[in-house]
Amino acid sequence: MPDFTDTLRPSQPDGPTTLARERGQSDLSVDGLSKHLFPADGFLERQARILHILQKEPLFSKEKQQNLSRVERFKLGLARAKLLRRMTDQHRWDHEDYKMAQYLVDDVSPYFLHMEMFVTTIREQASEEQRAYWMPLIESWKIIGAYAQTELGHGSNVRGLELEARWDSSTKEFILHSPTLTASKWWNGSLGRVANHAIVVAQLFLPKPGSPEQYVSHGPHPFIVQVRDMKSHQPLNGVVIGDIGPKYGYITMDNAYMLFDNFRIPHSAMLCRYSSVDPSSGTYTKPEQPALVYGSLTYVRANIVHHARLVLARAVTVAVRYTAIRRQFQDRDSDKNGPEMSVLDYPTVQIRILPLVATAFALHYTGLSMQNVYRATREDIESGDFRSLAHMHSMSSGLKSLCTMLAADGIETCRRAMGGHGFGGGSGLIQLNNDYLSKPTVEGDNWMITQQVAAYLIKKMTDAVESINTPGTDETDARFKEFIRAKRQAGASQPISLSNDQDIVKSFELRATALAYDAYEQRVLKKQNWNSLLIQLHKLSKAQSQSILVATFFKALSTDQTLSGPTKTVLWDVFRLFALYTMENEGYEFFRCNAVARSSLNALPSRVQGLMARIRPHAVNLVDSWKIPDYLLDSALGRYDGRVYEDLYNRAHRLNPLNRITFNPNYWEEEIVMGTGENGRNILSKL
Amino acid sequence: MPDFTDTLRPSQPDGPTTLARERGQSDLSVDGLSKHLFPADGFLERQARILHILQKEPLFSKEKQQNLSRVERFKLGLARAKLLRRMTDQHRWDHEDYKMAQYLVDDVSPYFLHMEMFVTTIREQASEEQRAYWMPLIESWKIIGAYAQTELGHGSNVRGLELEARWDSSTKEFILHSPTLTASKWWNGSLGRVANHAIVVAQLFLPKPGSPEQYVSHGPHPFIVQVRDMKSHQPLNGVVIGDIGPKYGYITMDNAYMLFDNFRIPHSAMLCRYSSVDPSSGTYTKPEQPALVYGSLTYVRANIVHHARLVLARAVTVAVRYTAIRRQFQDRDSDKNGPEMSVLDYPTVQIRILPLVATAFALHYTGLSMQNVYRATREDIESGDFRSLAHMHSMSSGLKSLCTMLAADGIETCRRAMGGHGFGGGSGLIQLNNDYLSKPTVEGDNWMITQQVAAYLIKKMTDAVESINTPGTDETDARFKEFIRAKRQAGASQPISLSNDQDIVKSFELRATALAYDAYEQRVLKKQNWNSLLIQLHKLSKAQSQSILVATFFKALSTDQTLSGPTKTVLWDVFRLFALYTMENEGYEFFRCNAVARSSLNALPSRVQGLMARIRPHAVNLVDSWKIPDYLLDSALGRYDGRVYEDLYNRAHRLNPLNRITFNPNYWEEEIVMGTGENGRNILSKL
Repeated sequence: MPDFTDTLRPSQPDGPTTLARERGQSDLSVDGLSKHLFPADGFLERQARILHILQKEPLFSKEKQQNLSRVERFKLGLARAKLLRRMTDQHRWDHEDYKMAQYLVDDVSPYFLHMEMFVTTIREQASEEQRAYWMPLIESWKIIGAYAQTELGHGSNVRGLELEARWDSSTKEFILHSPTLTASKWWNGSLGRVANHAIVVAQLFLPKPGSPEQYVSHGPHPFIVQVRDMKSHQPLNGVVIGDIGPKYGYITMDNAYMLFDNFRIPHSAMLCRYSSVDPSSGTYTKPEQPALVYGSLTYVRANIVHHARLVLARAVTVAVRYTAIRRQFQDRDSDKNGPEMSVLDYPTVQIRILPLVATAFALHYTGLSMQNVYRATREDIESGDFRSLAHMHSMSSGLKSLCTMLAADGIETCRRAMGGHGFGGGSGLIQLNNDYLSKPTVEGDNWMITQQVAAYLIKKMTDAVESINTPGTDETDARFKEFIRAKRQAGASQPISLSNDQDIVKSFELRATALAYDAYEQRVLKKQNWNSLLIQLHKLSKAQSQSILVATFFKALSTDQTLSGPTKTVLWDVFRLFALYTMENEGYEFFRCNAVARSSLNALPSRVQGLMARIRPHAVNLVDSWKIPDYLLDSALGRYDGRVYEDLYNRAHRLNPLNRITFNPNYWEEEIVMGTGENGRNILSKL
Repeated sequence: MPDFTDTLRPSQPDGPTTLARERGQSDLSVDGLSKHLFPADGFLERQARILHILQKEPLFSKEKQQNLSRVERFKLGLARAKLLRRMTDQHRWDHEDYKMAQYLVDDVSPYFLHMEMFVTTIREQASEEQRAYWMPLIESWKIIGAYAQTELGHGSNVRGLELEARWDSSTKEFILHSPTLTASKWWNGSLGRVANHAIVVAQLFLPKPGSPEQYVSHGPHPFIVQVRDMKSHQPLNGVVIGDIGPKYGYITMDNAYMLFDNFRIPHSAMLCRYSSVDPSSGTYTKPEQPALVYGSLTYVRANIVHHARLVLARAVTVAVRYTAIRRQFQDRDSDKNGPEMSVLDYPTVQIRILPLVATAFALHYTGLSMQNVYRATREDIESGDFRSLAHMHSMSSGLKSLCTMLAADGIETCRRAMGGHGFGGGSGLIQLNNDYLSKPTVEGDNWMITQQVAAYLIKKMTDAVESINTPGTDETDARFKEFIRAKRQAGASQPISLSNDQDIVKSFELRATALAYDAYEQRVLKKQNWNSLLIQLHKLSKAQSQSILVATFFKALSTDQTLSGPTKTVLWDVFRLFALYTMENEGYEFFRCNAVARSSLNALPSRVQGLMARIRPHAVNLVDSWKIPDYLLDSALGRYDGRVYEDLYNRAHRLNPLNRITFNPNYWEEEIVMGTGENGRNILSKL
């Protein structure tokens, strides 16, 4: 309905004017930096092509989805996920195309586990015969599968799972049984309402050789199990399944609970590439390389590390554009009748956003490096060489912990830096935040898995001490030996003065090495209880992972041939900002480790502020380089054209369904909707 | 529908067993500590009485509300709010009773602004005649009012508001007009769908004396304006109003936008206790004490400080109870077949939760102190003495910033410490988190308002330097003078060695004083630009506010006569944990300020870990002392009886409406709900 607000415009200078000036004042090449970030892998081409197709489909409109209930939102998510698969067939999308479409639509797909853990587990842990049977059914989506490992009572401690798979030698079947409530499967995505099959991880119980009435557990093993009827889609007899209900995020995902009551599955259900049960004798064959079974976990962690950069890039894109446009107060020390300042010009806004702009780049280079390490290690393993496995496992654990923490906290920091409108639905950060908050917990809790880094580094330090007189076998070993030798000579290494970029890297490495030595000393020499050291070990993992981020960023810029001129200059400042800001926040630890000179530490606040002042004019171009499309941002505050206020008003005035209802404000009347008689009792049925 | 899961129980030891042991192992007196926390103000008695009444009303059931859409949830919120007012009449509740009921129901009431800012503004800024007219209408809820100050383009900078109130001397009316889109009122609670009146803050434009065709702005002023028809509840002609749409939280609040098109209001609309316009001459009278106009802001900030303790107490109640019950892994260094450990026994879980348990107590004592300072200052002001106003304003600003940050971040830290189930809807933290995340922004952005603390302290330091030879006029002045004298004599004060609790307090005060001197030096002596100092000033405010929290906690325990024996002993450890944990996180700043000896700083990690080990056995009793009822917690993880897994399963299996729908998983069929033909097109109408 037209009204007098249709012709109103925001006060000047408006968003488009401001962003045009921001983009014009920087000589950083947006396209050059974009090509550097997304070189030959076709990411940007694919993004443009898929986006064009998606935007023609009304079902993918995000305009009002925040208003839907859980049930409605799930229906929408499922309808979209099915349509995406039909479009995959229709447009002959490859897997990368399909993943791009999911990324842009930005719903967690109810088919996600089918496409990831279910098919991966079959591929990696099923025998050839099993694969031949199941893969065609999976790839055609004739069956839909999920991955049911975590239980109500056990997540991290997989060995503690309670669900039992007991071999019945008389019928040659396994009997799945949940002896307790805590044995219920829990959190298993895609299974609550959608899947009809699942990989079910259960404790394998076999009769004890010689005394067949006694059963012995052989630990958790995967089984492929049909759990719902293929026609009625109801759970089979002896199976109880459902969705666990609303969560922080993942609104379109049907995370499941599932219990079994003496439910029989055939011998062929057990995935038997690595371990197996002989059907005639009931004899168990165990895997040759137990570590291989956990390969997919490392793969998932490496992917999470690589993904974090795009999450944070999205948040800083919104925050930088909006805080450039948002104006509040004149400069206190200058003309009080002058124009109000962009809030991004306040150092207190810069200190929250610009280090995160830098962090997105740091995550980018380390994400790439992590992918390369993963690929190289897989190749080693395929050729029978397992030596690099421990390094990759440690690296992926420490980085998963640190990078997801940086991205998750970064989203919220950006949101708060945007003041009131950051709290509104137009920020585009609500769903991103709600979904991403799962990442510090899933695939290895961020605090728990840092033990794996520490254990690896303590082992490395022990080896270095024992072989101190032989040359370093790798970079870490060489660094550790140098540290030990310096320590034996001087009692302590000399603090570093940060006079150049290489020094910054060295300082991070020295601190991580010193903390590794401390941990070695406590655990190996002083035989301290492991659990009593956990906080210290967590700090060690963080220091090591920060050191990787800084060193990788430095190496990427040092060896890069694609950037030049002002773009390269700005990127070096971005590197310094990331490193020095990180160091400032951990100042006392660097000092205690003798890893940096006191004068350099005292200078950090002003160096950081100086770097921010240098980077500030390029802030909009820096975030533009990530080329995150408006459709994905779904943000009034962060849109490319800067029409912040027009978009906020449009969402409120034209798109908000609450405004179509006239409410009755009189407390003495039970009626809620004016003139209809609808009252509280109508809602009671939903409570 | 009964099934085999009805008889299943969690594995042993279950929640009730664990909590019974936790409660039994501590000699801390829960009732003694409760009486100490809530002494004679009747809080606990009122809580029990109101809770008993509320729990009988089905409309207040929280069991399924997470599943509702925004529109449904708003209807529910309005129905509840109306019922609460009817119950107030029926049970003859006083205002404290009503507020308790709201607190327990835990919806942000759509009438909140009517009950707070609307009535407060009338009370404080209306003339006696205006009050006589409006107060009966307000108190009977015959009219419902809101407070419309913030605009789309301006929040913090109130002087930059764009809405105009232009005096028309011919008709003796004001003309409200929104010249731009950014002049739209925005965020104004209770106004989007419910209120029919509002305090509207607009730039007062009056004809220039002598040249009446020219208008001069006299800054923002409040007007009381009817905005909706009393019968149809539609906006009046010339007014556009609506709800701004979904946000992070505040789902039951109708935050508004509102614009005016040359909308005429009578002369009597201007609230004229402090400033007024003479209707015949158009002459302006300005307020005698402009600061008085902002009194209600300080009041609101003081309340936010006081409220923070209950928010954090709620989060730690859930976190402590759940992490005591949750078990994962055996102790790596002991019997691997022994029972799994409570996750609260891991130092890496303790370090996230126990300092927050301590923080809740720190917030409590400072919240009480802030209330006392507010009351004393109001009394001073009523008697015409304005000297304490600046101190109170500074204190409330700094504490609002720090305390809301501690509480908001604390909720999320607790959530992550609870692993997977922390991400679930059974945590009870989702709505708390979503609602509370507004607090770092509202009533003065947490980063912006720290300038007010810094400006106050720089002024105090300047005064101290100028009057160095006269005795201190108050505690701060005396401390500043001592610091200046020591500085002049020795060049620097001696670092403190933290050998007793008083030393800890002194160390915090010394650091805040040193930072205040730095800021004075930069701003007053070196004439640095204010904005260039903002980050430093923010750190100063944080240091000052932390010092207040530590000193107030210390003083409360030192002077307390109500606690004794083990309860008092544990509380002293809780004090030390709060202070030393805070210090460790700011270690380098304390070191740089020479506020603590290096050996003491190096000892902090082990002291903190030792304190946590001492407090750990009392953790459940400590949180029990807050007496937060299960109805308010609404948490499977945090319930008093410890039936965590039974409750999670009940919510999933029996209460989740998604499980009543059977979905069609076949991607080649458009149908979404099995057997009904319902498909994506049915949802399109809501997009």
